[in-house]
Amino acid sequence: MAGALDLDVLDDLVGRARDGQPRAVARLLSLVEDAHPRVAEIARALTPYTGRARVVGLTGPPGVGKSTSTSALLTALRAEGKRVGVLAIDPSSPFSGGALLGDRIRMTEHATDPGVFIRSMATRGHLGGLSWATPQAVRVLDAAGFDVVLIETVGVGQSEVDVVKLADTTVVLLAPGMGDGIQAAKAGVLEIADVFVVNKADREGADATVHDLKQMISLARREIRGASWRQPIVRTVAAKGEGVDEVVRALAAHHDWLVAHDELARRRVARARDEVEAIALRRLRAELVDLRGGGRLAGVAERVVAREIDPFAAAEELIADLRG
Amino acid sequence: MAGALDLDVLDDLVGRARDGQPRAVARLLSLVEDAHPRVAEIARALTPYTGRARVVGLTGPPGVGKSTSTSALLTALRAEGKRVGVLAIDPSSPFSGGALLGDRIRMTEHATDPGVFIRSMATRGHLGGLSWATPQAVRVLDAAGFDVVLIETVGVGQSEVDVVKLADTTVVLLAPGMGDGIQAAKAGVLEIADVFVVNKADREGADATVHDLKQMISLARREIRGASWRQPIVRTVAAKGEGVDEVVRALAAHHDWLVAHDELARRRVARARDEVEAIALRRLRAELVDLRGGGRLAGVAERVVAREIDPFAAAEELIADLRG
Repeated sequence: MAGALDLDVLDDLVGRARDGQPRAVARLLSLVEDAHPRVAEIARALTPYTGRARVVGLTGPPGVGKSTSTSALLTALRAEGKRVGVLAIDPSSPFSGGALLGDRIRMTEHATDPGVFIRSMATRGHLGGLSWATPQAVRVLDAAGFDVVLIETVGVGQSEVDVVKLADTTVVLLAPGMGDGIQAAKAGVLEIADVFVVNKADREGADATVHDLKQMISLARREIRGASWRQPIVRTVAAKGEGVDEVVRALAAHHDWLVAHDELARRRVARARDEVEAIALRRLRAELVDLRGGGRLAGVAERVVAREIDPFAAAEELIADLRG
Repeated sequence: MAGALDLDVLDDLVGRARDGQPRAVARLLSLVEDAHPRVAEIARALTPYTGRARVVGLTGPPGVGKSTSTSALLTALRAEGKRVGVLAIDPSSPFSGGALLGDRIRMTEHATDPGVFIRSMATRGHLGGLSWATPQAVRVLDAAGFDVVLIETVGVGQSEVDVVKLADTTVVLLAPGMGDGIQAAKAGVLEIADVFVVNKADREGADATVHDLKQMISLARREIRGASWRQPIVRTVAAKGEGVDEVVRALAAHHDWLVAHDELARRRVARARDEVEAIALRRLRAELVDLRGGGRLAGVAERVVAREIDPFAAAEELIADLRG
């Protein structure tokens, strides 16, 4: 099955995905997510149709209402006639199980809407898994003609920050009653957020959260060299749809700012740079692991454990072999 | 400063670290954590003195009492006369701030004990940061003569699973009242745990948690081929020190099992394999990024954004240059 992807079949798949057929989109996503041997051909076939979608990242700590917010944002973007693809990224923590549940809820709500496509991605284990596979999935949705691709991350961790790098615009969700969390988080959050959303804004403590956030932003501003974008703070009650239109306006304003300041191009080149690097490293890693049918790496590892060689010298040996 | 590390100075540092001088240990840890240009020489100087420490990983979802459990475990191991080094790994989520707080508490408790060394590691950003730097830090503590190295992970995510790969024995902490969490987590937790600890065992729901865990283990057992190790479930109230001696016994029993089944050697070879691979990839990555002073990668990234080339073809070009 895996190898049996003729170029005819691929062209046909790409054509049907571009016609808006969800099954073709799903099939292409599966192929890239599973790193099909012909994934390079798939990327080549999709590339001419890419570059149009706006990529929006959504992130925030557990409990802020990420799934609800994504769903509300979907509804608002659909009301403007935008076609929206959602990638829900699950870094596959053994302790996280949020993705599937959130996904099921949203699936129900938008299941009959052909202008919405939702996909959970759970890439386990392999080095660079997420940073490798996610841009491939974005490319599929972009080529399939979705106007907006929302990347929602589940859980917290480095992978989240990596995923945010893929976005043109990153939305960080917070909620009242997380005061300490915000304090602790300030440096990281300020770096990655283009738009802040304080969800559950009808709850006690919302004013304090907004206030803390404003202080953090004004303290940090002097350090962000030449940044003329003022990160807006939007209050929402996503469960009631309140404030969501304002989030949509903030996203549009940020997009305009990106274009006006040549920042969109800069971010996309940075993204391409990361993607090419991830592809090259994955390829080099496969070669390292395969040296002498895997025996080379296993052999040096045994010598390292026997303390005959240190791991840096072992790595040098492997690289020399790779250069062969 | 960074480059000014003579081999004399290095030998002296290693000698003082082996004499149990905490400042020398701290300095060596800083050097490897910051990826000092001579990190390979540091590893070489340490290697002859390594291989003795037992490496224990501690992990679990937020709120189970990880810091308290680590501290209680420290006390129990110290009572047996063991010297213990702790690496508290913080995957630097913008939303996590637990490490510093937990660290401060434990520092106070064990600050005056020369047989304990505690270090927080927060490696941000760079690919493979954590999986690259942690084995280097373990090597420092191992060479410095610590009998046990505890690796405690903060937060959840893929980096946690990566870190667990470094351990001889992995302890997964759970607590009552996380029923859903356990259900969702089962596959991952069963894979990585050698010893389960149900902390806060004096709380309501502890019996149910232990019961759920037992069921999961017995269901999964048939799938774990040839594994004769029965993952014990130890109940603790870490804040009162209850059950902690039993954890220490479970750790010793698992170590004996590892040795008796040649599993210790297998795990350490697997660890060395991962480490060598991470070092080689980091080196190759640096070379990729540096091609033509960085211009090569930037150049192909621009062509990818302009859709003149797809990212896989771009990666091939880079690899060809690297071999060149």
